Amino acid sequence: MPHLLSTSSTLKSCFSRPFTQSTSQQHTTDYPRCFTFKTSGYKCNGLVLQQDPSSHRSSVPASREAPATNPRSGSSQAAAADGLPKAQKVMVIGGDGYCGWATALHLSNKGYEVAIVDSLVRRLFDHQLGLDSLTPIASIHNRIRRWKSLTGKTIELYVGDICDFEFLEEAFRSFQPDAAVHFGEQRSAPYSMIDRSRAIFTQHNNVIGTLNVLFAIKEFQQDCHLVKLGTMGEYGTPNIDIEEGYITITHNGRTDTLPYPKQASSFYHLSKVHDSHNIAFTCKAWGIRATDLNQGVVYGVRTEETEMHEELQNRLDYDAVFGTALNRFCVQAAVGHPLTVYGKGGQTRGYLDIRDTVQCVELAIANPGRPGEFRVFNQFTEQFSVNELASLVTNAGKKVGLDVKTTSVPNPRVEAEEHYYNAKHTKLIELGLQPHLLSDSLLDSLLNFAVKYKDRVDTKQIMPSVSWKSIGSKPKTLTS
Amino acid sequence: MPHLLSTSSTLKSCFSRPFTQSTSQQHTTDYPRCFTFKTSGYKCNGLVLQQDPSSHRSSVPASREAPATNPRSGSSQAAAADGLPKAQKVMVIGGDGYCGWATALHLSNKGYEVAIVDSLVRRLFDHQLGLDSLTPIASIHNRIRRWKSLTGKTIELYVGDICDFEFLEEAFRSFQPDAAVHFGEQRSAPYSMIDRSRAIFTQHNNVIGTLNVLFAIKEFQQDCHLVKLGTMGEYGTPNIDIEEGYITITHNGRTDTLPYPKQASSFYHLSKVHDSHNIAFTCKAWGIRATDLNQGVVYGVRTEETEMHEELQNRLDYDAVFGTALNRFCVQAAVGHPLTVYGKGGQTRGYLDIRDTVQCVELAIANPGRPGEFRVFNQFTEQFSVNELASLVTNAGKKVGLDVKTTSVPNPRVEAEEHYYNAKHTKLIELGLQPHLLSDSLLDSLLNFAVKYKDRVDTKQIMPSVSWKSIGSKPKTLTS
Repeated sequence: MPHLLSTSSTLKSCFSRPFTQSTSQQHTTDYPRCFTFKTSGYKCNGLVLQQDPSSHRSSVPASREAPATNPRSGSSQAAAADGLPKAQKVMVIGGDGYCGWATALHLSNKGYEVAIVDSLVRRLFDHQLGLDSLTPIASIHNRIRRWKSLTGKTIELYVGDICDFEFLEEAFRSFQPDAAVHFGEQRSAPYSMIDRSRAIFTQHNNVIGTLNVLFAIKEFQQDCHLVKLGTMGEYGTPNIDIEEGYITITHNGRTDTLPYPKQASSFYHLSKVHDSHNIAFTCKAWGIRATDLNQGVVYGVRTEETEMHEELQNRLDYDAVFGTALNRFCVQAAVGHPLTVYGKGGQTRGYLDIRDTVQCVELAIANPGRPGEFRVFNQFTEQFSVNELASLVTNAGKKVGLDVKTTSVPNPRVEAEEHYYNAKHTKLIELGLQPHLLSDSLLDSLLNFAVKYKDRVDTKQIMPSVSWKSIGSKPKTLTS
Repeated sequence: MPHLLSTSSTLKSCFSRPFTQSTSQQHTTDYPRCFTFKTSGYKCNGLVLQQDPSSHRSSVPASREAPATNPRSGSSQAAAADGLPKAQKVMVIGGDGYCGWATALHLSNKGYEVAIVDSLVRRLFDHQLGLDSLTPIASIHNRIRRWKSLTGKTIELYVGDICDFEFLEEAFRSFQPDAAVHFGEQRSAPYSMIDRSRAIFTQHNNVIGTLNVLFAIKEFQQDCHLVKLGTMGEYGTPNIDIEEGYITITHNGRTDTLPYPKQASSFYHLSKVHDSHNIAFTCKAWGIRATDLNQGVVYGVRTEETEMHEELQNRLDYDAVFGTALNRFCVQAAVGHPLTVYGKGGQTRGYLDIRDTVQCVELAIANPGRPGEFRVFNQFTEQFSVNELASLVTNAGKKVGLDVKTTSVPNPRVEAEEHYYNAKHTKLIELGLQPHLLSDSLLDSLLNFAVKYKDRVDTKQIMPSVSWKSIGSKPKTLTS
């Protein structure tokens, strides 16, 4: 791997001492590099933590061989010239976020070489909106240091904005990923509906960022498998069964299998629809191999890796902008706030445990599609209506001594509140997904977590603050 | 109508004499205003030509009453308090372009009050790529002056970029359109496939521009009917009949009518798919009324209005970037260049005469949908394969003494070259469209036009210069 970064005139060494206190002496010393870059609206230092490339072969830790013990991951390990398994290199774009961080740790734990690419702008959103994770979270730098000290495993870090192609090119040329998992998007529907500037930001950031990733793969890493996070929200709530990405239609005596029709209901969800169409085209035109994971609503905070240390802890959002239904309900139950059901509560969606998110991503990487293939998997394990979730949380609350009330609030969204919903989700099961199903014990676990940190809850962040209908063109400052 | 523009601190008078030499003494003197604004990448003066608002009622020219003689337009005329018909105000975004200019003139001629909103960036593309229209075209300023001097009709002009919301807000607040016809997009598939920066520009410009138009309608002109130019290319070439926007699907015993699946084949065509999804959402969430005109390939150069004077003449593109199939073939035939059929030539698309484009837009405006309705019309009159077009041009050439040859060139695009194609197009017919069908006489007319200006043809612009597969991330300068 050439030292491409060190040839850049924009780079300079910015640390004079070893960055991490390695607990594993067979590792060579990591060296950090930093450069400055521009992003739209803010400036920060770009940090690139790189393992000495010359050490890759000799310094592979024992833990890197973990995939051999994981039959599902085994197929992803290409044999190197010396016959030893060569770890697959996975770039996790958005690896500091809720799903991204859990995934980066999980893949690192399973023996993949992992690099996180993240602009860290999600943390800026919290500052700007006056929000905070229920769980205290460490900086990305401390997270990575702690992971290294606990496991001996290195996670590389590229801090920058993928909308800046010069930055992305550096990251791709330097890391040379075999797979790129792309979580690096503005991922909140309410955020995209705050005001015009956030709507535009969401679509620009997500669509252009993904286009840049596609160009980077085409130019610098043709065989790199794109694993892109989509959303079940791309499909909307049609009155027929939802298939996985495609539907076979017989019409006027002829038949074709076509992309499943999309009916997204926020500027965020729409941005994912746009991504899906752009990716499908580049698979066809350029031979890119891509898997679109149309994910349901994720709940839970703990994974095998994040519970190893408090500094590895994942974020948990309960506010009305970034919090998703089940997580928010558990926090509401813990602090004695009524569960806020929007409208009639018949809104039904697919849900999954964050431990299944990381499992699904691993399965997609370990079983890549063919060049030119655009695969779509529906990534969830069970479907519930909002009313069903409220009822489950109420019953689980009783078992841990909580008196849980539910209140209906005017629906800030524009969506059907009573509708048919039956979405297929068999492809990941066929690849070996073993779901963690929502159960009372799980609720207890999530509820207990919420109780543990309930003193950190800002109850003013719970009620809906963003309305689909009253979004305007003037910049809006949300105040609690 | 309030003098909103004159309250802006960025405005100043920039002409000291009347702008136009009015031929109609009952018109009050027009006064121009100018302001400067920023757009992404270039700066220019923004010109706003406004008729004195106080004169609207008293100075309506006789010609404004034309719609009364047009039964199809008659329904669009709301009665004012004094019982006289009040002209509908139509904003034509992209009104300096090929379809936009013809439409602006046609609507003005039919008695609508017309304002053109255009950044004029299409003219910049010609300079940057070393291209030119076959037909000499006047500046937008001279075009509008000439129209006024010939007909007494005023077309207002707002020069600016709709991606700049401040500019667009000024235009909407000032003009207060009843309908906005949106041609204001980068409209060439090859242009969007030149390099990464043009791909990004196309999607950013088109998607964000349209989002801004939607916000402007929501905020400043709730009842304004959006008439948006889409493309038949959004559907791709499915193996089943193409319906108009929606398809009724029966699947596993249940039935729903859903958006027709989209399979676009360039970053340009994809940008229109993204627009369609965004517009559909805002119709549902905000109650916007919109008509998406999924237009086929337009041919021809003359309309009733553009042939009134050489300064009103429309552009005709024959180059490999902006030229479309039939127009390009006629120019090739005129200069003795073989007709360039890409690949096998079985590519089949819908086509229409530019005189039908202006008719369709007028019909859409005159028959608006309900608030919240997202209508989709397939806007073409006949479908042909590329081979059929080549054959028609060859035969028509014979009749005017031209010896036309055809050559197959490697297809620079990624597309099916032999496929099923049957697209519905009945909705505009039902509204009253009277098609100008492609015939030998029409070919003669278009061919004769090409012959008239054949000395202006740069034959180096004819062969394909942009490849779908070899697009890269580096900025590309096309050289002939």
